[in-house]
Order: sequence, then C-alpha cells, then structure tokens
Amino acid sequence: MHMVRVAVAGASGYVGGELLRLLLAHPDVEIGALTAGGNAGTTVGEHQPHLVPLADRVLGDTTPDAFAGHDVVFLALPHGHSAELGAALGDDTLVIDCGADHRLVSAEDWTRWYGGEHAGTWPYGLPELPGAREKLVGTKRIAVPGCYPTAASLALAPALAADLVSPDVVVVAVTGTSGAGKSLKPNLLGSEVMGSASAYNVGGLHRHTPEIAQNLNGATVSFTPVLAPMARGILATCSAPLKSTVDSAAARAVYTKAYADEPFVHLLPEGTWPATAATVGGNAVHLQVTVDPDAGRLVAVAAIDNLTKGTAGGAIQSMNIALGLPETAGLSTVGVAP
Amino acid sequence: MHMVRVAVAGASGYVGGELLRLLLAHPDVEIGALTAGGNAGTTVGEHQPHLVPLADRVLGDTTPDAFAGHDVVFLALPHGHSAELGAALGDDTLVIDCGADHRLVSAEDWTRWYGGEHAGTWPYGLPELPGAREKLVGTKRIAVPGCYPTAASLALAPALAADLVSPDVVVVAVTGTSGAGKSLKPNLLGSEVMGSASAYNVGGLHRHTPEIAQNLNGATVSFTPVLAPMARGILATCSAPLKSTVDSAAARAVYTKAYADEPFVHLLPEGTWPATAATVGGNAVHLQVTVDPDAGRLVAVAAIDNLTKGTAGGAIQSMNIALGLPETAGLSTVGVAP
Amino acid sequence: MHMVRVAVAGASGYVGGELLRLLLAHPDVEIGALTAGGNAGTTVGEHQPHLVPLADRVLGDTTPDAFAGHDVVFLALPHGHSAELGAALGDDTLVIDCGADHRLVSAEDWTRWYGGEHAGTWPYGLPELPGAREKLVGTKRIAVPGCYPTAASLALAPALAADLVSPDVVVVAVTGTSGAGKSLKPNLLGSEVMGSASAYNVGGLHRHTPEIAQNLNGATVSFTPVLAPMARGILATCSAPLKSTVDSAAARAVYTKAYADEPFVHLLPEGTWPATAATVGGNAVHLQVTVDPDAGRLVAVAAIDNLTKGTAGGAIQSMNIALGLPETAGLSTVGVAP
Amino acid sequence: MHMVRVAVAGASGYVGGELLRLLLAHPDVEIGALTAGGNAGTTVGEHQPHLVPLADRVLGDTTPDAFAGHDVVFLALPHGHSAELGAALGDDTLVIDCGADHRLVSAEDWTRWYGGEHAGTWPYGLPELPGAREKLVGTKRIAVPGCYPTAASLALAPALAADLVSPDVVVVAVTGTSGAGKSLKPNLLGSEVMGSASAYNVGGLHRHTPEIAQNLNGATVSFTPVLAPMARGILATCSAPLKSTVDSAAARAVYTKAYADEPFVHLLPEGTWPATAATVGGNAVHLQVTVDPDAGRLVAVAAIDNLTKGTAGGAIQSMNIALGLPETAGLSTVGVAP
Repeated sequence: MHMVRVAVAGASGYVGGELLRLLLAHPDVEIGALTAGGNAGTTVGEHQPHLVPLADRVLGDTTPDAFAGHDVVFLALPHGHSAELGAALGDDTLVIDCGADHRLVSAEDWTRWYGGEHAGTWPYGLPELPGAREKLVGTKRIAVPGCYPTAASLALAPALAADLVSPDVVVVAVTGTSGAGKSLKPNLLGSEVMGSASAYNVGGLHRHTPEIAQNLNGATVSFTPVLAPMARGILATCSAPLKSTVDSAAARAVYTKAYADEPFVHLLPEGTWPATAATVGGNAVHLQVTVDPDAGRLVAVAAIDNLTKGTAGGAIQSMNIALGLPETAGLSTVGVAP
Repeated sequence: MHMVRVAVAGASGYVGGELLRLLLAHPDVEIGALTAGGNAGTTVGEHQPHLVPLADRVLGDTTPDAFAGHDVVFLALPHGHSAELGAALGDDTLVIDCGADHRLVSAEDWTRWYGGEHAGTWPYGLPELPGAREKLVGTKRIAVPGCYPTAASLALAPALAADLVSPDVVVVAVTGTSGAGKSLKPNLLGSEVMGSASAYNVGGLHRHTPEIAQNLNGATVSFTPVLAPMARGILATCSAPLKSTVDSAAARAVYTKAYADEPFVHLLPEGTWPATAATVGGNAVHLQVTVDPDAGRLVAVAAIDNLTKGTAGGAIQSMNIALGLPETAGLSTVGVAP
Repeated sequence: MHMVRVAVAGASGYVGGELLRLLLAHPDVEIGALTAGGNAGTTVGEHQPHLVPLADRVLGDTTPDAFAGHDVVFLALPHGHSAELGAALGDDTLVIDCGADHRLVSAEDWTRWYGGEHAGTWPYGLPELPGAREKLVGTKRIAVPGCYPTAASLALAPALAADLVSPDVVVVAVTGTSGAGKSLKPNLLGSEVMGSASAYNVGGLHRHTPEIAQNLNGATVSFTPVLAPMARGILATCSAPLKSTVDSAAARAVYTKAYADEPFVHLLPEGTWPATAATVGGNAVHLQVTVDPDAGRLVAVAAIDNLTKGTAGGAIQSMNIALGLPETAGLSTVGVAP
Repeated sequence: MHMVRVAVAGASGYVGGELLRLLLAHPDVEIGALTAGGNAGTTVGEHQPHLVPLADRVLGDTTPDAFAGHDVVFLALPHGHSAELGAALGDDTLVIDCGADHRLVSAEDWTRWYGGEHAGTWPYGLPELPGAREKLVGTKRIAVPGCYPTAASLALAPALAADLVSPDVVVVAVTGTSGAGKSLKPNLLGSEVMGSASAYNVGGLHRHTPEIAQNLNGATVSFTPVLAPMARGILATCSAPLKSTVDSAAARAVYTKAYADEPFVHLLPEGTWPATAATVGGNAVHLQVTVDPDAGRLVAVAAIDNLTKGTAGGAIQSMNIALGLPETAGLSTVGVAP
C-alpha cells in the first residue's frame, strides 16, 4: 500500500508535537508539510526538542496551498482557525480538526459557548461511543473530541446506556498543564503550578461542558476542571445517582460488556483504580467503576493522557478508521511509566 | 503569663513535625517532651531536618510517664494508639488527639469504619462549625478533625445551614502525599506519584466519609479522594443540588455572613478560585462558592494545607481556644508561595 | 521602640511577595507603600494570593514620591531600575536593592556582564562573609547578593580562607524556577519544567559568575546553573583542588569554626547532606563539606531557599544589622517541610 | 527471520518494566519468561499498570530453569544476584546484565566498591565508546553500563580522546528518582522528593565513580550525584581543564566528528543546552559542549533517560548489535514531551 502523506498545521504547539511523535512511529504514514503561525520560518527542533528526526525541518506558513498533495491534514489550531482552513481544503483530503470548531451539533450551543457563527458539525472522533465508529469510516472530515469529554464520556456512557443511573452527572476532572497549550499566562508558569492544585471555570463555565452533555445524550452535567502539577494526564471522577439497586459487580459487568471489543479501553481489575501515569504517551483509557450504596451513586474514574488518547492519539485512531487502516496502527496501549 | 509546656507524641512523623514547626513560633509555648515509637533514641534532626533549633533533641519513648508535668500533650499517633495513651493521661492535662480515635460521635460508625471498640467522643476541633467553638473553651480533651473533613465541611456547611441545597453532597478532593504520612508503601514513592493523579478508596470507602457526614448533620456524602503530585495541600470540590433558585451572588452573601468573623477563613474575591499553593504552611482556608444554574447545583471549592489547617494548625487553634489564649496565637493566614 | 516603616517597590513579583511574607511577621516593622510597574492599580491579592492580610491593598506607582516618610525601601526591580530609583531616594532612607545594580565592585565587570554604566557599589548584604557584617552596621545602602552567589560563596569561603584549596572552583547549582521571576517565557511554563532538568548559561555565561569570584577574592570560577522542577531552592555543589593533605574531619573543623557564631548557617552532622526542602521559607543555609582523596578535591554542598536566604530573607537580615535590630528579628532557621 | 525469544528476570521493578515496554514494541522479539523475586506469583499488571498487553501475565520464580529455551535473558537484578544467575545460564544464551556485577575490569576496584569477589568482566554495552561496539558483535554476555557512566562518559570521551582537556574531570549529575528503583526508603517518598534537590554519596562515594574512570581511560573523577524531583532523567554537567587554547567551535567540531555516525547521540545546535524532558522514553543522548575561557575549562552537558538509554534502551541496543539486528531496531530517538 502507498504511504499516507500527512501534514500538520500548528506543528510548534503541544498537540502538533504529539501528533508528530505518534506519526513518526506510524507504519503507514509519511510526514509532509509542517506549518505554524507566528513560528513559521523556525525549525521544529526549536519548539519540539524531543522530535530528533525532525529537528532541522523548517515550519512553513499555514496557508491552504501548503497542504496540496496531502492525503491527510491535521489541524492543531486555536478554535476559529480550523473552520476557516478546513473550508479551504478539498473534499478529497481527510481533514482532522483537533480543535473545537466542529464538535458541537447544536449551533445554539456553539454560539453560547464559543461565540460567533457555528461552522458546522463533523463526524465525531470518539469511536468508542455508540454509533460513532460507523460514521468515521470513509469520512473526509473528523472533529477530534476535547480531552475532558473523552475521559468523562467513556467513564459514564455505559452506565447511562444501561439505565443504571439518572442522567444527572457530576464530573470533577484533574488535568495536567499541557491541556492549556503553550499559552504564556502567569498561572501556567512552573513556579505557580508546581506544588499546587487549583480549580478553574467552576460552575459550568468550561466549554467542554456542552460537549460532555452531547455525548451523554443530553444529560445534565456539573463539570469542574482542576489543574494539578503534572504535564500530562486527565483523571476524571464521574458519578451519577443510581436508578436501581445495582451492585458494583453488576456495574462492572455492564462496563466489561460495553468495552469488550474496544482495543484502547482497559477496564482495570476489581479494586484497582486508575492512575494517569500508566497512560502517559499511550492511547489507553484506564477505567474503573463501582457503586456507593450509602451515597446512592455509581462512581466511575477514567484516566487518559490528554495529549494522546485525549487529542493526538484519538485523532490518529479516527484517521485509521477513516482510511481503512487497522484501528490500532501506530498506536499502543502501553504507557511510559514511572 | 507562664509559658505553656507542651509535649508531642509522635514527633518523627509529618504531623509531629508540623506541630513542632508551628509550636517553635508560638509566643506562649515552650517545647517539652518529644517522643516517638520505633524512632525513639534518634534525634529530631534525623527525621525533621527543617527543624534546625531542635536538631539535636533526642526522641524519648512514648509512655505516659514521659508527659508528666506538661500542660498540653499532642498525640500524632496512628489510630488506636491515641485512645490508649489519652486514657492514661490525667484530667488536668490538655490532650489533643490528631488521630481519628475520638472524632466520631456514633460508636456504631466507629466500629464499622475503624473496627474494634469506640474510645469515646471528644470535643471536635473545628471551631468554624456552628456550636463547635464553645465546646472547646476550657476543655481538656480535643479531637482534631481529619484533613478532608476540615476542607469539605467548611466548604458546604453554610449552604446546608442556609437550606440552599439538599443534604446530598458530592465531594472530590485532591490531596498531596503528606496526608498519607511517612508510610513506606510503593504507591507513595516519588517515582510513582510525580506526574500522576490517582483515585483511591473510591465508592465511599474512605474513613473520612462518616466524619464529613457527621459535620454536615447527617447529609448523604459521596466522597472520592484523589492523590496528586504535591507534598501538601487539599483542594476539595464540593457540590449539592440547589433547593431554591438562588444565584451566585446570593450564595456568596450567605458564605460572607457565615464566615465574617472567622480569622482563618478567606472567602476569595468573586471570580477567583482557590489554589492550594496559597495556603502552604498557613492556617487559612481559601474558599469560593458559585451556582451552576444549568446543572442545578451549588459548587464550593476549599483549599487548605492538609498538615497546617488540616491537622497541626487546626490543633493549635483549638488549643488556643481551650487555654484562653488568642485564637490566632502562633498561627497565620499567610502561606509560603510560590 | 518605634516601628520601622518599610516600603516595597516591585511588590507584585516573587521577590516582592517574599519580602512581604517575611515583613508581615517581623515584630519591629510596619508595612507602608507597596508599588509596582505595570501592575500598579491592581491589588496585592491578584498577584500574591498567599498574602491574605494584604489582599485588598492596591499597588501604587513606583515613583520616588511614593516612598516619602519611610525608614526602609526595598527595591525588588529588574536591574537598571534600582540604580535610578536608588539615586532619587534620600540619604536618610535605608535603601535595600534586591537587584544586581550595586553588587559588583569592578565597573569593568559591570559593563562586561550587564552592559551600560556602573551605578556604583553598595555594602554587600552577605554578613557571613569575612568583613561584610561590619560594613552593614548603620549603612543606608545595601546591595543584596544574588541567590547563587549566596550559596556558592558560603560553601567555599572557609576552605579558601583556610588555604585548604586552590582558588580554582567548580560550581554546579541546581535551582528552582522562582529564581527566574514571573517572566512569561516558554521554557518556564509548568509543562516544560515539570519532569525536566536543564542547564543554561553554560560556559561561564551567567551574570552571577563574577559575583561569586568577587566574594571568593578573585578565584577562578566555573559556574553552571541547572533548572530543576521545583519552585524554590538552590543546591550548590562546589569543589576545588586540595592544596594540602587535609581529610574530611579537618575540613569540617575549619567550617565548624568559621560558622560557629553564625545564626543562619547550619553545618549538618557528618555524613548528612543538604536537601533544599529543609530550607523552604526559612533563612537557613544547610551546609556540608567533605574531602575526596581519590579526586584530590574538597567538595562542599550548600542548600538555601533562593527567595528567602537567597534574596528576601538575606535582605531583611542585612536590614536588621543596618538598623541595629537583632540580626534574627523576623527570621527563622525553620523550613516548611515536607 | 525467526523471532528472538527473550526473558526478563526482575520484571516487577523499574528496569524490568522499561525493558518490557521497549521489547513490546521491538519488531524482532517475542516475550517469553518473566520472573521476579518476592513478587513471583503476582501479575505484571499489579506492578506495571502501564504495560496493558502483559497485565495478566503471572511472574514466575527466578531460577535458571525458567530461562530454558530463550535466546536472550535480561537480568534486572540487584548486584550479586546477576553473577550467580549468569553463571548458571548456558553459553548459547545471550545474557544481558543490567546490574553492576560484570562492568568493572579491575577485580580490585570491584572488591573496594562493591565488596566480595569479582564475578568477571563482560563486554561493556556502551557501543558509542571507542572500541566497544566491536566487542559486542556476536557476544553472549553483555554488561549494561550504569546510568550515570553512560551520560558522563559520552559527555567527556571525545574531549579526552582529542586531548583537549586534562584527565581530571568534575561531574555533577542530576537524576530522577527511578534510578533508585522501587526501594522503600523514606528519602524516596514522594513527600520527600517533590520540591527538593539533594546531594548524596558526595566525595567520591558513589559506586559509579570507578566505572566513569574506567570509561575515561583512568581519568581522575570527582563525581557528585544530585537527586531532583522528577521520575526519569539524568543531566550530567561535566567539565575538565583545557590543555590547549581551543574555542567552543573547535570543541564542537571534535564532538560532531566523534558522533557523526552514532544513531542515538544528538549533538544540539550551538547555543542550545539539553533538557532531560526531551529524552524521556527515548534512547537518545542529547549533548552540548562549550569552552569557558575565563575558567579555563571545557564544559559538556549530556541528558538521557536513565531507564531508557541509561539502562533498558542501552541494553536492547547492545542486544541488537550482539544478534546482528539493526542497531536501532525497537528503539527511537524520539522522546515523550512535554
């Protein structure tokens, strides 16, 4: 088979770097154009010193012309930019938007949460959700999920689908700092984040809230993100009120069945709870579920690497499906630990 | 006034070290006997290199005799040990138990959560709870609260007292590793905790659950603790279903009033959320509250230093009340940051 | 005695914050004007959430007029700014420059390392250096040492003074990120520094090199700074070729004698090596020395908190000396650990 | 070609885990026996939650019989144990000792530094050293270098070989905690290591000192290891007195030439210095060199992942050479960052 020629727009950021890290190891891919915004004209090595094989590659400008002749274009851009560039790329190119522009179905939601006009909805790149994988086969447009929605949706979807819980969920998700990108904000300085946990966008203000609700068929979602002193990782603690008198074993059975054929969902042995370290650099979702009979709630905890399964790895998984490659090509469930 | 002579049982551990750090700076206190278990016969400096003025002090054995002639004895011991030692100390000595033995009111709860026979209930050292401060005045026995209950109870008590929410709360609390003490467990090794967030005792299994419920007048409590890569700090994200159509401003007004006279509760300016770093080494509780109308929940977030306000600082605050000293003597709202 | 009225120029940065943290606990001081550059008009709380008692104080503009009526003005400003402001303040005001402007004796060195014209030399605020304390008594101008020179000079001065080693020293010093201030540089982002150690200004390019040499009477200095994933702390590993056949015990004896009366230098017990954690928030220098007979070198390691003894604490120590207060007033050898 | 059947003795530790992580991705290898000491009978998943594909594999006992029928046996055992087991394995099995037993050439050095009798010397698995690669071709016994010697030797060897410097070197190397393994020691607890840098084995006491000297043809070595708050990584700052008036460009030219054909040595662009984060999980050595004319020293800094290039990756690289596989098979220069 001919090698798939891929390009990355936004190759100097964290998502761009993670895409390239994974694509370098993908057996069916060759890396083509790499572009940036303000960093155009500099080398990959200046921004991604870990990508040794690409150290001397010079970043081009992010213009539609840069992507001519590519089979796949990954967009790792701030929201708003993806829509514009995506519209300029032809229908024979697989465009994979790692940003938010094409995730939400509801134009009203888009306008409320992001402002401006909705650019439309693309097939949603979370193949483990019911019905999602099918829509990715052969598609030329993919909206990569947000990192929090990936973790929270996979933690709760089976319980809701099996009607174990009411659609009224509470999600508190701890995240590493790379989710915020390379933004030069004082609160993201190492001196500020090391040794500190802090909540932000509390009270339903985070833009991933409607996306989680959408994935959970309109459930009511209370979502609080918490920044923790680590570069990578999301640990989502998710709970919902029990509808019936299910015990932990029964809840585990539901999850076991729901994810039996999923190559990247790793339901942990009973009594073991996820740690984000085990997912670093891998595409696995580590998951556990239990029932708290005193509180009358089901509690599920999911751990992912926000940059891998949460963004770049999930994007490549969806690319594989869209192109008819093995879904696991170039990806692994193995993390880098300790 | 004569100096208060204090002793610390368990002076080689983290709680013992934090007690000593604070007591060294307390204007009304002189440090007497320092004892340990297996570390008896070694110096303070071997275990607490940060306590330079005590570097050469040799730790004694933890026997009742060691505490003769002291006004105050702090017990920083594993649960079970405090009850025994406490019973052996006279009624004229103020005994402050930093462990769990005397926190729970219900003997049935004690037996369920800790096993064995209940040693009895002592006045509870969380003066900010309604009615608690009065019971501490002049007492000779104090049960220091758990670190998680301190954060969670102060975050939710005003909303419950004002009937803003139903007594059905969800608490997800991120903690630093010092809360687990110096236990030599593989999951507490630096290599394991750095770069990782992990949940534990999920599904209502943590022993602080009934203590939170007790502080919240029997509310139903779903509690999940999460270990994060930092030595100190608890960030408790707490929420409950709204009972009435209160908005954020009204919720803040309730909290402002509830804590108006509290020297250690720092309600943050609107829109600002707590970070644990700001509380390190200080006795402050940083607190914020909001309403999420879409989710129909009130969300409150509290940050404390688990070793200071969460244990040793709270213990000294209660000691001050019991002895009739200024409540803030030897304590500060100022943290060590960044 | 009347309270000393102090002002801080640059109160929104890390050094300014640390000065205020310590000054809030100083028994002889009242805090007056607090000023900033671009942050003038905002509150202390926005920048220093750990300084609860000052949360609502509004930062003024940094102009000479702001400091009228103050006994002491601390300058926590970028180099170049201190010289200008210092020159505008009267001779009856004690001006303490936490920046580099007045540290170097040699105007030629100044021009080579910092560029521009030398503003002159002020008494050097490292009282533990031979002859330094005397020059601080009664002075109205103090140059606070750099953080690296504080650690490295105290580690090596006794060995050089006792002629144990040749004046040809190698210093490799690991530092936390707060030494770089709140600069919004990509390499200081939490995502970059966590999990990473990196060298910078290698090969004698760091501006603290000539200051170390000056403190060591013109010794040849090879200095390499290394950034480590921690907010605070410097660990300086310093070595020099042995001149004579001295053993470790003899070297320790020299250091013991040299620092016998120093309240803030803590020579550790034999066989124990410094860890920066033990110094966090305290003004202590933890120090150890040994001889490596195979390598023919004396090796000394010093740990300090770069913001406390390394800057703000050292500044207050020197202030105390200048004003005739007890040298340890408002300062402590106790660190915040773990 | 038939798949190489490999076994790992000591599969529950950090080195064992890293070997397995890399071997799972090696195209020419199949994983056979996995054994442990005290952890025999438990699953890989209990100790290595990141190795999802091996989660249910049960660890066997570490006896010679366990390794029958394997082409390659990796020994990830405490020193002393490797010698014994190695002696029991046949000459047709490639035995790769990740421990110290067979590194030193001098029996006298062995006895001085490790005690007991020397087990003999095996071909040394640092192919980048002059003459080393040749000795690995076809060998059935490999001694994997220590992590510090890997970094320090590669940093200094070219300068010494080109006679740029005197053989009198100073190495200060910052390391992450995984180098100490899963030892349950108080100083390795997360609470102790986070936020702290500390020196240990100062004054030439570290057992890697004679190994560095051996690699550098008997140079005098002053070596100080420093523990930093990160799980992985070594940053070795190495210097030596200049013999001739070489400038930085000339020094770089020497290094460029020395490592021109090395697939895993990445000499950074001029002015860029290594950060360990860029090497995490990869087999690359990031290297930079400069000349400090004022100090009269050449300074070279090397960064590696102590578990990858520093141990397990280096071991597999040497295995590839021994077996006639491509040297880079299953290995990568790409790190996982941020």
